[in-house]
Amino acid sequence: MVGKYGIAVRNIRRAPADAVAELSRYGVATIHEAMGRSGLLAPYLRPIYRGARVCGTAVTVLEHPGDNWMLHVAAELLQAGDVVVMGLSAPDDHGMFGELLGTSFRARGGVGLVIDAGVRDTAELTEMRFPVWSKAVHAQGTIKARVGSVNVPITCAGGLVNPGDVIVADDDGVVVVPAAQAVQVARASQEREDKEAATRARLKKGELGLDIYDMRSKLAAAGLEYHEKPEDAQ
Amino acid sequence: MVGKYGIAVRNIRRAPADAVAELSRYGVATIHEAMGRSGLLAPYLRPIYRGARVCGTAVTVLEHPGDNWMLHVAAELLQAGDVVVMGLSAPDDHGMFGELLGTSFRARGGVGLVIDAGVRDTAELTEMRFPVWSKAVHAQGTIKARVGSVNVPITCAGGLVNPGDVIVADDDGVVVVPAAQAVQVARASQEREDKEAATRARLKKGELGLDIYDMRSKLAAAGLEYHEKPEDAQ
Amino acid sequence: MVGKYGIAVRNIRRAPADAVAELSRYGVATIHEAMGRSGLLAPYLRPIYRGARVCGTAVTVLEHPGDNWMLHVAAELLQAGDVVVMGLSAPDDHGMFGELLGTSFRARGGVGLVIDAGVRDTAELTEMRFPVWSKAVHAQGTIKARVGSVNVPITCAGGLVNPGDVIVADDDGVVVVPAAQAVQVARASQEREDKEAATRARLKKGELGLDIYDMRSKLAAAGLEYHEKPEDAQ
Amino acid sequence: MVGKYGIAVRNIRRAPADAVAELSRYGVATIHEAMGRSGLLAPYLRPIYRGARVCGTAVTVLEHPGDNWMLHVAAELLQAGDVVVMGLSAPDDHGMFGELLGTSFRARGGVGLVIDAGVRDTAELTEMRFPVWSKAVHAQGTIKARVGSVNVPITCAGGLVNPGDVIVADDDGVVVVPAAQAVQVARASQEREDKEAATRARLKKGELGLDIYDMRSKLAAAGLEYHEKPEDAQ
Amino acid sequence: MVGKYGIAVRNIRRAPADAVAELSRYGVATIHEAMGRSGLLAPYLRPIYRGARVCGTAVTVLEHPGDNWMLHVAAELLQAGDVVVMGLSAPDDHGMFGELLGTSFRARGGVGLVIDAGVRDTAELTEMRFPVWSKAVHAQGTIKARVGSVNVPITCAGGLVNPGDVIVADDDGVVVVPAAQAVQVARASQEREDKEAATRARLKKGELGLDIYDMRSKLAAAGLEYHEKPEDAQ
Amino acid sequence: MVGKYGIAVRNIRRAPADAVAELSRYGVATIHEAMGRSGLLAPYLRPIYRGARVCGTAVTVLEHPGDNWMLHVAAELLQAGDVVVMGLSAPDDHGMFGELLGTSFRARGGVGLVIDAGVRDTAELTEMRFPVWSKAVHAQGTIKARVGSVNVPITCAGGLVNPGDVIVADDDGVVVVPAAQAVQVARASQEREDKEAATRARLKKGELGLDIYDMRSKLAAAGLEYHEKPEDAQ
Repeated sequence: MVGKYGIAVRNIRRAPADAVAELSRYGVATIHEAMGRSGLLAPYLRPIYRGARVCGTAVTVLEHPGDNWMLHVAAELLQAGDVVVMGLSAPDDHGMFGELLGTSFRARGGVGLVIDAGVRDTAELTEMRFPVWSKAVHAQGTIKARVGSVNVPITCAGGLVNPGDVIVADDDGVVVVPAAQAVQVARASQEREDKEAATRARLKKGELGLDIYDMRSKLAAAGLEYHEKPEDAQ
Repeated sequence: MVGKYGIAVRNIRRAPADAVAELSRYGVATIHEAMGRSGLLAPYLRPIYRGARVCGTAVTVLEHPGDNWMLHVAAELLQAGDVVVMGLSAPDDHGMFGELLGTSFRARGGVGLVIDAGVRDTAELTEMRFPVWSKAVHAQGTIKARVGSVNVPITCAGGLVNPGDVIVADDDGVVVVPAAQAVQVARASQEREDKEAATRARLKKGELGLDIYDMRSKLAAAGLEYHEKPEDAQ
Repeated sequence: MVGKYGIAVRNIRRAPADAVAELSRYGVATIHEAMGRSGLLAPYLRPIYRGARVCGTAVTVLEHPGDNWMLHVAAELLQAGDVVVMGLSAPDDHGMFGELLGTSFRARGGVGLVIDAGVRDTAELTEMRFPVWSKAVHAQGTIKARVGSVNVPITCAGGLVNPGDVIVADDDGVVVVPAAQAVQVARASQEREDKEAATRARLKKGELGLDIYDMRSKLAAAGLEYHEKPEDAQ
Repeated sequence: MVGKYGIAVRNIRRAPADAVAELSRYGVATIHEAMGRSGLLAPYLRPIYRGARVCGTAVTVLEHPGDNWMLHVAAELLQAGDVVVMGLSAPDDHGMFGELLGTSFRARGGVGLVIDAGVRDTAELTEMRFPVWSKAVHAQGTIKARVGSVNVPITCAGGLVNPGDVIVADDDGVVVVPAAQAVQVARASQEREDKEAATRARLKKGELGLDIYDMRSKLAAAGLEYHEKPEDAQ
Repeated sequence: MVGKYGIAVRNIRRAPADAVAELSRYGVATIHEAMGRSGLLAPYLRPIYRGARVCGTAVTVLEHPGDNWMLHVAAELLQAGDVVVMGLSAPDDHGMFGELLGTSFRARGGVGLVIDAGVRDTAELTEMRFPVWSKAVHAQGTIKARVGSVNVPITCAGGLVNPGDVIVADDDGVVVVPAAQAVQVARASQEREDKEAATRARLKKGELGLDIYDMRSKLAAAGLEYHEKPEDAQ
Repeated sequence: MVGKYGIAVRNIRRAPADAVAELSRYGVATIHEAMGRSGLLAPYLRPIYRGARVCGTAVTVLEHPGDNWMLHVAAELLQAGDVVVMGLSAPDDHGMFGELLGTSFRARGGVGLVIDAGVRDTAELTEMRFPVWSKAVHAQGTIKARVGSVNVPITCAGGLVNPGDVIVADDDGVVVVPAAQAVQVARASQEREDKEAATRARLKKGELGLDIYDMRSKLAAAGLEYHEKPEDAQ
């Protein structure tokens, strides 16, 4: 037999704490842009409540469909500020996580969960304000029969996540910042925010993006023609 | 012509009222587990507002796509505490139910609706706090041209529902408890809750599921290997 | 090259302001019914927050996947009370609109957006109470490379939208009222509401739709048979 | 624990052999119509090869996601002419069936499979001409860890299937004929075919459905208006 | 009541016959490119058999879900070389068309069907080589209760289709050429084919698109960097 | 700006040629099992023709939605026996590949394509017998405006693919064998095939999996109970 199942790594290299703190100030869209428009997980991941928001370091979990055994293994390996990110060996919607595991994760330092499967006990998790981004809400229970892995590289919702990466998630979705790029992305995010603040002030006064971004000549060059009336455009 | 269309049954055997009252204390996930992980309807059924919750006895309705005639027939057959469960002869997303029918159902004793199709007037139904679990939100109107049935066995969102079964629904979805099992499932749910309360207290203190559920030796037997560093795992 | 790309029309014929004001009093389901059950866009368009609601005149935008250039062109052509409706040359989920464009649209008179693609900055747009109905929530950024058109007829979520049409959207979805029919539809909506108010009062008292709508004989003619007990129906 | 898992029934009441033989002469659409437009399973079930076709008696199997243990139990309970119909306790796409099981089923008398999950070895099964209707083609392997049931009533692709029912499947999908109705449905199918043959001959000569079915006056009564030119219709 | 239902137009302006003949020589992808990358219907429309191909003038049909009455009205209005294109007032998957209607359409001059719903009798239609592009294969039968329209502008699979437009469909999907542009698009398609033939010959000999299209300097300007080994790229 | 876009690696370490040759003898399901049930890409990837089959070494391509520029870069870096595997920075269905690129790839040694987007010219590619596994068939054309990368690690259809990995694809889907495991997986595949051949022979004679795999006592231990008649099971 060949494979990457059956591995749990105790000590991983987490992104620098100050970079994580810095990144926690920006939204998912800003960070994604600061990374050159990369790093997003698929938009089918949705938060279980509006206003959910998290920024932390990834502890990765690889499970099999209908089996949540490794989430218990992950609980022991959590440090304060970790976000668990769970991928699967095959697509699945089982409710692999509920309020008992949420209670355990929180007690061990976990601050959130990104799960490429289902979640249940969403009312209780919402009341606890334990943020979860999931593919489905489903009460379907799981077994504990097959080993997967903890803290190995995984794919989750179409993206690659390495243990220790920074995970930022909000109402817009989830973005993954590779640990080695965290400092640089935080800086680029700040630059983007500064620039946007200036633009926002001008837009608020009624100035147009056409002028702020100097688009008029480019639009004309690209062939845009203005017509006064619908009839003229035919 | 052959078929089960065209039937309305006036008197059905509802699950015992005290078992229904007992079941109303538990969440969908708990009851599903207490039934040996059975009874869930498909997770595409979603509540129209967060915090929606119902427990009652099923009055079943079988409709045809784009036609909501039998919901009017069902209104007359409702008793206090009934939940209407509507299935279809073919998949459909029409908005078969709105606030007028919600007003009628409530006036006749109905306490909720599970519908394998669309719903409309969701703002008004939310304001009324009339809970609905549906496959879609869709304003598309319906006709009244073909007879279906009321209070016959139906399939709804992939599950089988008999008239009189107990329907429990919350933010996690919908579970169906056969009337004959209601007492037994209520008891098993209570046992599960008791056990979970004890576990929750231990998890909250930081104890691990690995120890509470005695998983360590089973994980080792199943082949899980711990590594200190990522490099060791390659 | 042949096509309808590259056109921006400055002056369009908007539906009469008093008809728009009149239509703003009715919900999407009512207006759809008053139009003979037509005019709905596909139900996959969902509001970014509960309770979102808009009624205004359409400024239409045709974009290419992953490219939001023409939304900037549209900003200049907005008048007070306009709703931007964006269609695409091919299906796409990019986050084509965020709070900067929302700020710009509002400053120029725009009151909402219907977009057959993704939206981002949903937390900020919700805080601003700028209502958006979209196909997806997605942070994925866009480029500005290909010209589309503004204020040409478009298809959006399966429906045809002409510049100047009335757009009404609420929790139930989006309905399009052709400008030339606005007055007539407003009147028919009022008639429907009046009729429904009377029906609602009767239903609330426990009267049945079966009697109010005189359905009993039609149901019998269509073959519905009542049985006292389940056994009788077999 | 409560539930219907863990049951295998050896002797079931199969539909009468001559009715099955009779039904094998008709297509799925014809039989569905002869049943008053009922009995179809959801259209996401697709045959693994064009031209697949089967008519036989149902041996039902209830499995759990990712687990195909009970298909082996079913193999022993097959009789010549049986079609295995497999439902699940929760939605799943695993490749639960391949050419080894196909070889076993055929050796024991099985003539086809309807499976609300995935199938693999589709090239080999196609070469063997063992017909399968499935929800997905997926190579993902399964375990044998949890007992389900064989020959209990199940739901499959949204429909209810009882052991012994007649299953007819072709390029158009799958229809279920309750055992007790098999004779009657076969007769109604024949009547429908006879009628259609006469209609077909007339249509082939260019006669219109408008005249054959006498629709013209009904269309006029329903409000259809003919216009000579597009302009007249505005 | 307000709306566009209830209209049948007898005489429409079809695209010029020689332009249709000319367009029949090109594939869907070529024509779509020749139109400046416009005109495609959504890719969920799939042919019922491989190798299906049609080019003809559109007779449009607007139906309601579950109701195929107007297809019978359309049959009478067909001329030799027409392709029926059917849209709906709301999304639906019913099997609205089968071999009887196929027989009728063919007898009246129809050469194919594009339908934003389901189709049945696919084995028979395949044998007849009557090409159909549909959203689903579904045996579910329909009623004849509500009038729609024939030969009015419709939306089908997200696109706008006017009566008389040219419809070209093959294994790649369906493209709509507005009647007024047919001549111009045919010419542009020929130019594109000529150009592609020359390119194909060069590519076949091993020349690269990089050189043929002169991409190297543009790629460098856009920031592409070549590395000799994976290590160099980190 | 931060990111992995803008990289093309010329020389990659391909899996050993003899291991690739060996792996070409097995089907996707066999190899997936030999890898401990890992390595499959999502089942939405489907071949453009029945019987398509390929085994080769991966040249990876990372593109942006609606833009196929890097496929031209990849053409130059192909060696005989390579399979191009294309992932995206965000979900997309454009027709990024057609017969011109197929001609180019083949001329440069490419033997197939796995693409997490759309493909067009499927009739021509089928005639050429150039095998493609894609997420969609779509004629929608693409631009050449943004650089991605070639021969960097990518995610495709939910899986991780490194340049030089072995790609095996057939009617059942696509499996990725990491280059370093190719020899070992080939050996394990052979062992599995040998074992299956023996099992197949026994099953063909009518022996049961229940006996061959010694399942009877395990089933009994897991709680399976046999009943002679349906009535006994209630």
